[in-house]
Amino acid sequence: RRQAIQAEDLCNIMNNCHTIRNFFRCHEGFIHWSRELCSIMLSMLDRSGDGFMQWNEFQELQQCLVQWYQMFKQFDHDGSGYIEANELVNIVRTQFKYNLTPQSIETLLKRYSRVIMWGGQEKCLIAFDDFVSVSVRLRAYTDAFRKRDQLQNGGDSGTCTFAYDDFIRCVMCL
Amino acid sequence: RRQAIQAEDLCNIMNNCHTIRNFFRCHEGFIHWSRELCSIMLSMLDRSGDGFMQWNEFQELQQCLVQWYQMFKQFDHDGSGYIEANELVNIVRTQFKYNLTPQSIETLLKRYSRVIMWGGQEKCLIAFDDFVSVSVRLRAYTDAFRKRDQLQNGGDSGTCTFAYDDFIRCVMCL
Repeated sequence: RRQAIQAEDLCNIMNNCHTIRNFFRCHEGFIHWSRELCSIMLSMLDRSGDGFMQWNEFQELQQCLVQWYQMFKQFDHDGSGYIEANELVNIVRTQFKYNLTPQSIETLLKRYSRVIMWGGQEKCLIAFDDFVSVSVRLRAYTDAFRKRDQLQNGGDSGTCTFAYDDFIRCVMCL
Repeated sequence: RRQAIQAEDLCNIMNNCHTIRNFFRCHEGFIHWSRELCSIMLSMLDRSGDGFMQWNEFQELQQCLVQWYQMFKQFDHDGSGYIEANELVNIVRTQFKYNLTPQSIETLLKRYSRVIMWGGQEKCLIAFDDFVSVSVRLRAYTDAFRKRDQLQNGGDSGTCTFAYDDFIRCVMCL
């Protein structure tokens, strides 16, 4: 247990560790890592489900974040710290390769985009921290679904059955 | 659409509306309502799924929050703004009456409690905003599960089947 950290510690490291702080930047300055976001990042990699992060999981998280940051930067042409809704759709479909219907994509956008006035017109934008949040949750929920699907159906059938309690445990862990 | 508000507007109202701001208080002062929390409060009551809150939903939310605040206060004996883990367990079981196993309760606690030094000893505590977050998510996910269960099984069988896309839509809307 000595080597493991909790969500508060991760939050502290993400916001105060000099190198990490300086790596993730946008026009407005440093990225703020909320406790909420740190909790779900920790949960995504917490395979044992004990609420602690080990060193190897911390490294895995950093790898993941660097990859997502580079993906995000690629679409954030003006370095504003935001990407447009259709660019998120692009990333989810072509980079992450999640097989989602337009309705599900719509749900993601409703939950994570902000309507912002930009150069005189309304734009539907996604900030970097929200992008990380979507990415973490999509990955963790897809993993949880597939694990159950494979156990029940011996492969990816695309359908699986939940008991109420298991459903709550699965969705509430992040 | 004129009458409807989005998550940013709700956040603005919750934090700046004089009466609301002064109603919800703890030792440390006013409760801070994060954008994240406002998003999920809006989603919980957004039956049309259009991402907007109507006046009647706003009223329903306030009723809900007042109820939860009073429940919370009842257990927060010293007005610290925190309740203890076993008191959350109590509320979930006896007030909300969700039928959850000890493992699911454990998941909730891991996700929403903070280990804090209090009077010389470590305590596992839940802050009011996290309490609202748990309450919103438990209610919304339970509603979503029951709706599907009833549609599939003509009643509450306690088990239901999800296609991957429907699962993602259901869990990502809050």
